Amino acid sequence: MNIHDKPQNLAPQSVTSGPLPGSRKIYARPAGRADIAVPLREIALDPSAKEPPVRVYDASGPYSEDDPQINLSAGLPRVRESWIAKRQGLEFYSGREVRPEDNGVVSPDRLVPPCPANTSPRKARDGALVTQYEFARAGIITEEMIYVAARENLGREHMVEGAEARLNDGESFGASIPAFITPEFVRDEIARGRAIIPANINHSELEPMIIGRNFLVKVNANIGNSAVTSSVAEEVEKMVWAIRWGADTVMDLSTGRNIHNIRDWIMRNSPVPIGTVPIYQALEKVDGDPTKLTFEIFRDTLIEQAEQGVDYFTIHAGVRLGYIPLTARRTTGIVSRGGSIMARWCLAHHKESFLYERFDEICDVMRAYDVSFSLGDGLRPGSIADANDRAQFAELETLGELTKIAWEKGCQVMIEGPGHVPMHKIKINMEKQLKECHEAPFYTLGPLTTDIAPGYDHITSGIGAAMIGWFGCAMLCYVTPKEHLGLPDRDDVKTGVITYRIAAHAGDLAKGHPAAQLRDDAVSRARFDFRWQDQFNLGLDPETARLFHDETLPKDAHKTAHFCSMCGPQFCSMKITQDIRDEVAAIEEREKGMAGKSAEFLEGGGKLYV
Amino acid sequence: MNIHDKPQNLAPQSVTSGPLPGSRKIYARPAGRADIAVPLREIALDPSAKEPPVRVYDASGPYSEDDPQINLSAGLPRVRESWIAKRQGLEFYSGREVRPEDNGVVSPDRLVPPCPANTSPRKARDGALVTQYEFARAGIITEEMIYVAARENLGREHMVEGAEARLNDGESFGASIPAFITPEFVRDEIARGRAIIPANINHSELEPMIIGRNFLVKVNANIGNSAVTSSVAEEVEKMVWAIRWGADTVMDLSTGRNIHNIRDWIMRNSPVPIGTVPIYQALEKVDGDPTKLTFEIFRDTLIEQAEQGVDYFTIHAGVRLGYIPLTARRTTGIVSRGGSIMARWCLAHHKESFLYERFDEICDVMRAYDVSFSLGDGLRPGSIADANDRAQFAELETLGELTKIAWEKGCQVMIEGPGHVPMHKIKINMEKQLKECHEAPFYTLGPLTTDIAPGYDHITSGIGAAMIGWFGCAMLCYVTPKEHLGLPDRDDVKTGVITYRIAAHAGDLAKGHPAAQLRDDAVSRARFDFRWQDQFNLGLDPETARLFHDETLPKDAHKTAHFCSMCGPQFCSMKITQDIRDEVAAIEEREKGMAGKSAEFLEGGGKLYV
Repeated sequence: MNIHDKPQNLAPQSVTSGPLPGSRKIYARPAGRADIAVPLREIALDPSAKEPPVRVYDASGPYSEDDPQINLSAGLPRVRESWIAKRQGLEFYSGREVRPEDNGVVSPDRLVPPCPANTSPRKARDGALVTQYEFARAGIITEEMIYVAARENLGREHMVEGAEARLNDGESFGASIPAFITPEFVRDEIARGRAIIPANINHSELEPMIIGRNFLVKVNANIGNSAVTSSVAEEVEKMVWAIRWGADTVMDLSTGRNIHNIRDWIMRNSPVPIGTVPIYQALEKVDGDPTKLTFEIFRDTLIEQAEQGVDYFTIHAGVRLGYIPLTARRTTGIVSRGGSIMARWCLAHHKESFLYERFDEICDVMRAYDVSFSLGDGLRPGSIADANDRAQFAELETLGELTKIAWEKGCQVMIEGPGHVPMHKIKINMEKQLKECHEAPFYTLGPLTTDIAPGYDHITSGIGAAMIGWFGCAMLCYVTPKEHLGLPDRDDVKTGVITYRIAAHAGDLAKGHPAAQLRDDAVSRARFDFRWQDQFNLGLDPETARLFHDETLPKDAHKTAHFCSMCGPQFCSMKITQDIRDEVAAIEEREKGMAGKSAEFLEGGGKLYV
Repeated sequence: MNIHDKPQNLAPQSVTSGPLPGSRKIYARPAGRADIAVPLREIALDPSAKEPPVRVYDASGPYSEDDPQINLSAGLPRVRESWIAKRQGLEFYSGREVRPEDNGVVSPDRLVPPCPANTSPRKARDGALVTQYEFARAGIITEEMIYVAARENLGREHMVEGAEARLNDGESFGASIPAFITPEFVRDEIARGRAIIPANINHSELEPMIIGRNFLVKVNANIGNSAVTSSVAEEVEKMVWAIRWGADTVMDLSTGRNIHNIRDWIMRNSPVPIGTVPIYQALEKVDGDPTKLTFEIFRDTLIEQAEQGVDYFTIHAGVRLGYIPLTARRTTGIVSRGGSIMARWCLAHHKESFLYERFDEICDVMRAYDVSFSLGDGLRPGSIADANDRAQFAELETLGELTKIAWEKGCQVMIEGPGHVPMHKIKINMEKQLKECHEAPFYTLGPLTTDIAPGYDHITSGIGAAMIGWFGCAMLCYVTPKEHLGLPDRDDVKTGVITYRIAAHAGDLAKGHPAAQLRDDAVSRARFDFRWQDQFNLGLDPETARLFHDETLPKDAHKTAHFCSMCGPQFCSMKITQDIRDEVAAIEEREKGMAGKSAEFLEGGGKLYV
């Protein structure tokens, strides 16, 4: 459905739903809290495995339940409503009136209707506690904190076996990952500014999640229409599709007609935090001319989106007038849209950025709804040639300065990072960000480790993302195969999300996250036992794994065959290894300890043991 | 064509040929050597760029010439014949007779004919210099050394501008990459055992290439039939297809019927080094029963393949009897086919491996044809759980011991490595390999950095490959999306090769290779100038890049449009940056130095400059 062709049928009709193969949704309930139900995905294994089901983190929301009752007009269940309702510092109010320019001055016959699930917005009363940061600083553990603690533990009520050994076996570069996550630990990390729970008080449908260096590495997926194509049905489905494959947050980068109302539909139906770049919409309200932007229009746009429930805003307040000339001799200048818009404004008016100058007023809006800052890197490098240059780092230093202001104002903050960085320059990005931004969570786009592979930038950047995730980056913004070339389609979004789930998980493994390797081990055991279905189902993409297998060996019998197409039935190393195991066991039985002899052999300098 | 169905038409009929879009093949001739023509690919840029064509390394052979005259029956031009013919230490001989078991005892009506381009083989005379290692140790620079020096310099006769600054800007972990490669440097690296030129004296069609830590990182692609599917036409085309996308060497892992004769066709038509795992064929000669293997059958197979011209052999001589019990409690036991075959043999006979015990006799065969060793890691980990365990490292220590023996015997050696290794355990693999194996080149399979993504193991392993390439690994064996699931098809091979070219190049960039970033910079300038065709053509896969672009903006006019589908015409950061450049230039002109003011601004602690 294209919204410009079929105005009579604008509400999205359906989205992808149902569980992944072999999986079912379960909800863990922290002790004594019937009002908190933390979603997990449980992957059942073949009975021959004699292993319990494997639990994995699940960002996909109610859509992946067994028989989900999805009604996009009604929106998702408001899992946070009872928590928020009890908070004294909040009040309902009528909210800002929606204006034609909010929807790009679309003609009435083409107007997407607002989502019927909308309610009046809440905002903070003066002087009350509102944000997760403020609660944390005041020593108060919120429901959101309890929720994410249980979620990070994958619903376990106790430490995973060997947790400390696994931590010791990892390398976390000075992070402070605990063997088990408690709500108190979550509170402490938020109070120190080292983690955020992006959770607008007007997004009660949200299943809370946490972003911080001492938690599981998270993944963001961007969605959005564009000046050239797209429709409302596609937008909601894109969000659902992205979280189905594992996106922890979604940024809506839409522009153009109907964006306000499409955002309504996305918010009311999103179980994950939604981020936006409000300057995009502000720019549309001044007909696309950056020089006409004003602080008032920008502020009004913040309020507009905050009332809808957007959980975090990218704000490029670090693009200062004085930094702009530093980009003039770059190979690729300024590649951030937001950065270039603000640079254009600063130069045209020969004035410091209003985002920088009036940052405290921005904080006041953000705090009133608990919208988290994602301080944008408007001067990030757009090429290997420009990586780690003075423009980039000057801005990063300013973001550190702004972080402190935002904290003083009670706001949650994360910091955006590059971009395009060769491998040997990635670590310094992480180290400098930790230092300059006082350990506020880092959220990077890739980085791409080379520029020579248009069409494969999910891979060029997946390499950098895995590395920076390991080094301490808290959230990785995905890059799809279409980056630099065109708009991602459904397959591209899936490929991008899965590539970034790989990167995030590789980072968790390398940091020694206590529970990360459990899933790898389950896959490896399934592989070794020729439990093909289990191998498929335990993977990030069961459907593709099964499809690839079936291309060579389609018969159902082959799903239980003790060989695969690579070597064929007579020539299988796995089978030989099983024989070796049996034989070693028999020898051990006979000789009471061939393994001991092996140790002797090694200690004896490798002299032959027969 | 399936060889089992259509015996009357067994010779491959055609393979993919012609240049990549925007490219042409050129040949660089080192001064004074009309007999040496080094292939390069030259990518022409749009005249508006006012830039010379970009030269890139080209492993694709004559197939990618403008109007290639390919005749598979005649084989490729014998570019090394005149060099080899002059060498006193070699002699023609009648060669071993081909026996029915060499072709898997295929029935006569299904026998693939031998390639008509075959000639009598050469071998070493007693006591003469034969191998590149022997020549290098004797201080003699061979034609192959001159060739690879020119090839590594991309045909440049002088150092690239800023080469030393680029080297200093990189991080090579103690490698000794020079600013410019001379034949003398090549000779010295080979003499020290730090690099090899896999170049069997019976593979005169070879365009020589070098594998070593101080040279460009190389990529290997595996091809092969299997017990389940495949045909001869597919096999030759697979090699041609893999090198078209950038494979520097190809391993033929075929088994079953007709493998000897199919190998003929591949050798006579391959411009890249071909590697094999001879134990696979030896096993077939004993009906697939590892316990029936003998040294005599193995040695005979080495001679069989060496006479055909195979350039390197994987030999799992490090799988010693005493190490086998170390694998019994692994999560995934022994996953190397060769390793498990030898382990089976050792256990069944309760004897030390004949590959280890009679290694010196193996060296004698290898030296006589200058077949390089690729010492196999038969005990590599098959899962994250088994990475860096005692079995793996015990074998690596033995490979170091064997390396010294092989060098004493005059042979070239590289060392195979894992496998499955989480990110934080990759560097120790490289460090230990350098130490134990005396800096012999390392050649790893990935490594995969997580096991949770069957169907995406080109990506899980591309991450590890890029890192280990940076750390000093000389060649990366590709992994395709089908790894662990099925046999790669044409698209999988292409995806695997391109993923690994990304990894190799990312490694070269990070090491500070003098010429690596030139291509990235050319892409970035093309991107910034909206030279879409140039961006496509400079990339690793021009066809896919163009296809992706055209999905959103198909019109030809859009190839020169100064915007793209991501932001649309009114909203383009690249365009804004160009405006900024113009504006900064104008301001600089007016004010004589805003950039200077920017420096003042920064030095003054960031006080506002208006």
